[in-house]
Amino acid sequence: MLIGSIEAGGTKFVCAVGDEKGLVLDKTSFSTEEPDKTLAKVESFFKEHPIEALGVGTFGPVDLDKTSNSYGTILKTPKIKWQNYPFLQKLKNTFHVPVAMDTDVNTACLGEYYYGAAKEANSSLYITVGTGIGAGLVQNGQVFQGKNHSEMGHIFVQKHPDDDFKGSCPSHGACIEGLASGPAIEKRYGKKGYLLAENPGVWEMEAFYLAQAIMNYFVMLSPEKIILGGGVMKQEKLYQMVQDEFMNLLNGYLAVDNVKNLIVKPELKDEQGVIGAIMLGVKALKREI
Amino acid sequence: MLIGSIEAGGTKFVCAVGDEKGLVLDKTSFSTEEPDKTLAKVESFFKEHPIEALGVGTFGPVDLDKTSNSYGTILKTPKIKWQNYPFLQKLKNTFHVPVAMDTDVNTACLGEYYYGAAKEANSSLYITVGTGIGAGLVQNGQVFQGKNHSEMGHIFVQKHPDDDFKGSCPSHGACIEGLASGPAIEKRYGKKGYLLAENPGVWEMEAFYLAQAIMNYFVMLSPEKIILGGGVMKQEKLYQMVQDEFMNLLNGYLAVDNVKNLIVKPELKDEQGVIGAIMLGVKALKREI
Ligand SMILES: Nc1ncnc2c1ncn2[C@@H]1O[C@H](COP(=O)(O)OP(=O)(O)O)[C@@H](O)[C@H]1O
Ligand SMILES: Nc1ncnc2c1ncn2[C@@H]1O[C@H](COP(=O)(O)OP(=O)(O)O)[C@@H](O)[C@H]1O
Ligand SMILES: [Zn+2]
Ligand SMILES: [Zn+2]
Repeated sequence: MLIGSIEAGGTKFVCAVGDEKGLVLDKTSFSTEEPDKTLAKVESFFKEHPIEALGVGTFGPVDLDKTSNSYGTILKTPKIKWQNYPFLQKLKNTFHVPVAMDTDVNTACLGEYYYGAAKEANSSLYITVGTGIGAGLVQNGQVFQGKNHSEMGHIFVQKHPDDDFKGSCPSHGACIEGLASGPAIEKRYGKKGYLLAENPGVWEMEAFYLAQAIMNYFVMLSPEKIILGGGVMKQEKLYQMVQDEFMNLLNGYLAVDNVKNLIVKPELKDEQGVIGAIMLGVKALKREI
Repeated sequence: MLIGSIEAGGTKFVCAVGDEKGLVLDKTSFSTEEPDKTLAKVESFFKEHPIEALGVGTFGPVDLDKTSNSYGTILKTPKIKWQNYPFLQKLKNTFHVPVAMDTDVNTACLGEYYYGAAKEANSSLYITVGTGIGAGLVQNGQVFQGKNHSEMGHIFVQKHPDDDFKGSCPSHGACIEGLASGPAIEKRYGKKGYLLAENPGVWEMEAFYLAQAIMNYFVMLSPEKIILGGGVMKQEKLYQMVQDEFMNLLNGYLAVDNVKNLIVKPELKDEQGVIGAIMLGVKALKREI
C-alpha cells in the first residue's frame, strides 16, 4: 500500500511516498513557488506513484476548523500568493484519494510519536525552535486540536532581567517566538546564532526563555515526552541548560523522575515531518481523520 | 435515575443527587474535616438516596493517571491528613456503583459546558480566580487530560512594569497564581481584594495578568468559550478590562469576532461544580470514563 506525504514549508516542499508503517520509499524536494507552479511539481512527482491516500503537513496559519467553509485554506501569511489558497481542496481535486492535512509541527510531532523519540510514550509534545517557534501535541495517536490549530509559539513569559530587547514578533513583540526564535537571537545581538556559539550569556538567556515555555506547556498539557528540535537546538549545550532551568522553575511542584527522559532530542533527524505526514495519510485512509 | 455528586473542596464538601440531565434534586454541605469523618458524612447523605453512579470533583493535586497504582489518590497537599488518601478507592468501596473523579475546576468546566455559559459551544475553558488559579478544558464533551490533570495556574507570564511583588506561590513565586490569585492581591497590597474595590491601579494590574494568562491558554488550546469565574471576578469591572487587554495582546494575530462572546461570566452561579459532577456520574454510568 503506497501512501503519499507532503511537507509543505514556506521555503521548501518535500514530497515522498511510503508504506503504511511510515517507511519512506521515494522522496523529492523543490523550492516553494507560487501555488499553481508548486502544485504542478507535486502532481508530477505523484504521477509516478499510485498512492492510495495523502498526508500533508503545511506551513500556516491554515484553517483546520472542520466546521468552517474554508477548511484547509491558508490564512493570512506574508506569502501573499498563498493567502486564501484552498490547499486541501486543490489536493483532493487533483488526486482523488483521501487527504488529511495538519500543521507542519503537528505532523512532525506525529512522526516522532510513532517512530522517533516518543515511540514508547502515550503523549508527546514536539517543539521546534527555528525561524519561528511552534509546538504540537499528540496523545493516544491523536493530534490535539481546539477550534483551530494551536499557535504555541505566541505565549507570553517573564522577561529575563538583563534583556532589554523588545522582541521580534510582528504581532506581539515579546512573545516566546519574539524572544527566543532564531531571528530573535539574530536581532538581539546583530549576528546569526551559529556565530554566537562561544558567547555563554546568549545561551543562558535562551535556556531561560525555553525553560519557561516548556514549564507553561508542561503544567498545561502534562505530556510524557517533550521533544525539542529546530535549527537553534543545533547548539547542543542548550539541552542540559534547558533541562536544569526547567527543574529549577518547576521546583518540585510536580514529580519528574528524570528530566533527561522528559526533555529530549528528536530521533528522526530531518524526517519527522515526512514520516508524520505518511502517518496522517494512513489515518485518512482508515477514515480516522 | 439518580446520580450522586460530590464537590470536594479544601474547606467545604457539597454532596448532591440529581438526574441524568444534571437537575439537582437534593443537596447538603459541611466543612471538610479529616478524611474518615468527612467520608462518614458523605455516606450518611447518600444512604437516603439510591444512587446508580457517582461523580466527584475534588481539590488536588490528585493522581488522575489511569495507568498509575495510586489513581484517585490525593497527592502532596498542605492538608496533611488527606495526603496519600485513596479517595476514589474509598468511595468505590463504600458505594458499589460506578464512580468517576476529576479535579474541581475540570468538573466545574463540565457543568458550564453542558448547562451554562458554554452550552452552545463545542469546546470551553473554565478559569477560576480565587484562593488559587486553575483552569479546565472540555472539548466535545471530554475533559482534556494529559498524563495527569493540568495545573494551568502555574504558568509564567510577563511581570507588570510597576509590580515589584515577588509573588505568593510557595513553589514558583511569580507564576500566574502567585501574581493574580486572591491571596496574591492581599499580600501585594496588605488588604483583602474586596477592600481594594475603589483602587483602579489594582484592577488594571490584575487585568494585565489575567489577560496574559488567557492569551497563553487561547493560543495553545483554541477554545470556543472562555469562562472566567471565582471570588476575584466579583469585581465585575474586571470583565471588560480583561477583554480589552486580551484584544490588545492578541493584536489581530488570530481572528476573534466578538471578545464579549469569547470571554464570559459563568451562568451556573455556584452550582457548576455540583452539576458538572452529576454529569461525571452520568459518564461513569455509561462507561464513558
Ligand atoms: N548552529 C546554529 N546555532 C544557532 N542557531 C542556528 C543554528 N543553525 C540554525 N540556526 C537558526 O535556526 C533558524 C532556522 O531554523 P530551522 O529549524 O533550520 O528552519 P525553519 O524553522 O525555517 O524550518 C535560523 O534562524 C538560524 O539562524
Ligand atoms: N468582592 C471581591 N473582590 C475581590 N476579591 C474577592 C472578592 N470576594 C472574594 N474575593 C477573593 O477571592 C478569593 C476566594 O475565592 P473563591 O472562588 O470564593 O474561593 P475558592 O477559590 O477558595 O474556592 C479570596 O482570596 C478572596 O479575597
Ligand atoms: Zn507572537
Ligand atoms: Zn505556582
